Amino acid sequence: MERIGFIGLGIMGKPMAGHILKAGYPMYVYNRSKEKAAELVEGGAVSASTPAEVAKACDIIITIVSDTPDVEAVLFGENGVAEGLSPGKIVVDMSTISADATRGFAKRVAEKGATMLDAPVSGGDIGAINAKLTIMVGGDESAFNKCVPVFQTMGTKITYMGPSGAGQATKMANQVMVVSCLAGICEGLMLASKEGIDLNSLIDVVSGGAGASAQLTLNGPKMARRDFSPGFMIDLAVKDFGIVQQAQKSHKLAAPFTALAVQLFAAAQSEEGGGKLGTQAILKALERMSNYQI
Amino acid sequence: MERIGFIGLGIMGKPMAGHILKAGYPMYVYNRSKEKAAELVEGGAVSASTPAEVAKACDIIITIVSDTPDVEAVLFGENGVAEGLSPGKIVVDMSTISADATRGFAKRVAEKGATMLDAPVSGGDIGAINAKLTIMVGGDESAFNKCVPVFQTMGTKITYMGPSGAGQATKMANQVMVVSCLAGICEGLMLASKEGIDLNSLIDVVSGGAGASAQLTLNGPKMARRDFSPGFMIDLAVKDFGIVQQAQKSHKLAAPFTALAVQLFAAAQSEEGGGKLGTQAILKALERMSNYQI
Repeated sequence: MERIGFIGLGIMGKPMAGHILKAGYPMYVYNRSKEKAAELVEGGAVSASTPAEVAKACDIIITIVSDTPDVEAVLFGENGVAEGLSPGKIVVDMSTISADATRGFAKRVAEKGATMLDAPVSGGDIGAINAKLTIMVGGDESAFNKCVPVFQTMGTKITYMGPSGAGQATKMANQVMVVSCLAGICEGLMLASKEGIDLNSLIDVVSGGAGASAQLTLNGPKMARRDFSPGFMIDLAVKDFGIVQQAQKSHKLAAPFTALAVQLFAAAQSEEGGGKLGTQAILKALERMSNYQI
Repeated sequence: MERIGFIGLGIMGKPMAGHILKAGYPMYVYNRSKEKAAELVEGGAVSASTPAEVAKACDIIITIVSDTPDVEAVLFGENGVAEGLSPGKIVVDMSTISADATRGFAKRVAEKGATMLDAPVSGGDIGAINAKLTIMVGGDESAFNKCVPVFQTMGTKITYMGPSGAGQATKMANQVMVVSCLAGICEGLMLASKEGIDLNSLIDVVSGGAGASAQLTLNGPKMARRDFSPGFMIDLAVKDFGIVQQAQKSHKLAAPFTALAVQLFAAAQSEEGGGKLGTQAILKALERMSNYQI
């Protein structure tokens, strides 16, 4: 079995690493705050002291950190993954970062004779915990094929999307589709509420037809009972949409719905602690605007 | 069995009336252009010469016409339904019109001792033909209960939503939720296309997660193959959203996503014949804006 390195043991990374470890892979882990590795080390993983050490010891090195600069630092910073790379090794970045930057990172990894895949995920912490992630992969296809068994320990839908950056591009498109859908649900709920309609009956009826969506099923009932706890956090959405808007700008694509959604995220963050709420809290921004609560 | 009157034999009304007739109900029909009644008359329906005549002959009088003024004319114009109403009769308006106007119409029907339900539908002509409509009903609940067997000949999901206007309000909220979702899909497809992603693979992946929606399933593949034939026609969406925006205005609700969608519909209509395309043709408006076709 390949030796797996896992770097970044946050809300997503920790349960994901746990699934790989449980599947029996030898594992080296690294996290800036060491205490997050404790549980995995108890389960048999080796705690490495630098990303370079992880890369030296492993065949497949997985990273899942917050943003583009974090990936760059982990890969190419001092004692970074790149220092431990050699021909045949595969780097798999599962963070959600810029597709364009990803293509640059992949070139730098290739200079070491190694291969880099981008493999961002969808499904949130619940998907990570239940090993039900959607994994969208870009990069060399034979490297992808080698990693499929590892991906299968973490996710249920694993798709090869094309060359380097294609995984990230797919994730961006996914986020764009999610957020407009969510905003429409907010405006629909507000209108129905003003009209005196029972919101749960409304959600049930709309879910049976052309307005059905995963967002309505997941977030509609939460909004109706004013549960703004995070499935997917506003602060993280803001990060993702920074990446999305940069890509739209570089492609000279006008995207007014995306832009409006970004404004609602900013409005959601304007409230004390608003950034730590779930994306369904854009409802609160729309409510404040019209002085009305559903 | 109750005698059913059916007024308005358009794309939706004709197949709907056909299902009621096939279920064995005695039926009187009326349409401005008489030739549309021919098939139903062959099937045993009686062609009436005015809406008043339909109302005199029937227990339940169903109307499905284009817009609020059309319903008003059919109900309260010369030789309108109101002239043939008497206590115990039920008027069921299945058009999509203003919830507020509906409440006024219901009061005027009540003055004749009769009852009016609003029962707009979702599911389009395909749903009408296959008797798989979603029917959202507002008005007196005992009148609703009497009409359920008739609704069941036309639809699969029949829901009582509350007092007069509640059916129309539900339909409005449904439309709001549908259209933002659709717009987000357009922007997501455009970004993915610029990134070189295969759009059908993208649709498949997104459909497995948080971005899944009926709109993505129904209209995503159509957009990818540039099929802009109507499921739901832009001109009709513009009519529905006139009603939606009037309601939002009267409730003093700001709804920026709805407003943006309405602008895209206008842009879609700006093309020769654009109003006769399906709502997925808002993609073309976004494409023109950025000089890019997916």
